[in-house]
Amino acid sequence: MTPQHPRNATSVPLTDQLADRWSPRSFDADFEIAPDDLTALGEAARWAPSANNAQPSRFIVGRRGTPTFASIVAALRPVNQGWAPRASVLIVALAETQRDGRPLRWAEYDLGQAVAHLTVEAESRGLSVRQMGGFDPDALRAAFALPPELVPVTVVAVGRYDAAADLPEEIRQRDAAPRLRRGLDELALILDV
Amino acid sequence: MTPQHPRNATSVPLTDQLADRWSPRSFDADFEIAPDDLTALGEAARWAPSANNAQPSRFIVGRRGTPTFASIVAALRPVNQGWAPRASVLIVALAETQRDGRPLRWAEYDLGQAVAHLTVEAESRGLSVRQMGGFDPDALRAAFALPPELVPVTVVAVGRYDAAADLPEEIRQRDAAPRLRRGLDELALILDV
Repeated sequence: MTPQHPRNATSVPLTDQLADRWSPRSFDADFEIAPDDLTALGEAARWAPSANNAQPSRFIVGRRGTPTFASIVAALRPVNQGWAPRASVLIVALAETQRDGRPLRWAEYDLGQAVAHLTVEAESRGLSVRQMGGFDPDALRAAFALPPELVPVTVVAVGRYDAAADLPEEIRQRDAAPRLRRGLDELALILDV
Repeated sequence: MTPQHPRNATSVPLTDQLADRWSPRSFDADFEIAPDDLTALGEAARWAPSANNAQPSRFIVGRRGTPTFASIVAALRPVNQGWAPRASVLIVALAETQRDGRPLRWAEYDLGQAVAHLTVEAESRGLSVRQMGGFDPDALRAAFALPPELVPVTVVAVGRYDAAADLPEEIRQRDAAPRLRRGLDELALILDV
């Protein structure tokens, strides 16, 4: 949970992990994630549901300071290189989009679910998550010798939110900006209840 | 939470909503979901993260007994028609895969996240969720006059688990079967921590 930030504005209260969840850029650059917390993130992803229990989610996990972390940072777009190196771990989330020559139709959808479960577990442990689509998939393919059926979909930053992080003013302002969502009536195409 | 079922087997404990989550077929065919609970599911999906805050998730929601519910049931594969009509609501989860003629790269991934957040909120309210890929997308397209950019990805059943549900033995056995997952070492291609 990130108490320095207002809860998400909802018409009915949500469970804490969802009510307090947001995606900060201001991570504590000195914070080290505990081994059990890291294991719990993996367990949360592992027990997420998947179509036909195919379990198409794969991960490359690098702790800050490791060669893997550096390779992931090198593949990020500059806008993300401005804040993501402060995260405690960076995780490449990959979807196994084919198996035995057949497409796994729900691979990316199920990967999204696995990362969401990881995020909920992170929130319950006082950690925050921000995901990125802004990276060079080919750079990750080259760095980690990925086979074609494994598609890097997002890079997931996990760490501890730090409202006083020493970041450029532009990044601080983006974190402080109001968070907006469409109304429920836009999400529900048909509501027959 | 579904106390009649063993918790997911993890090497470290997870937060309740994830530790107790599973995807039952045995729903209480008489249970009516409360309006606030249904609203909370929508709010959970609404506040899920999405790439560039594009919010590509859309839903068609039918309560049991409505024409919308009947149309969704009619599009399911027979194996799902055997249990899904007992759910309190059926929700078609759709991804807006294009906007203004451009692909939304993370539409299905983000839809997966939104449904996962909905699922966590459901668990926190004593409800259970089971998702289906076994349905005819074209039947849903026809029934709900969907434009091409909206892709029905899953059908989501929400209701109250009923261990004593009057279901065919084959379905009861599938709910009682052990739930298995790959090991953490299979999920983590590289673990540099």
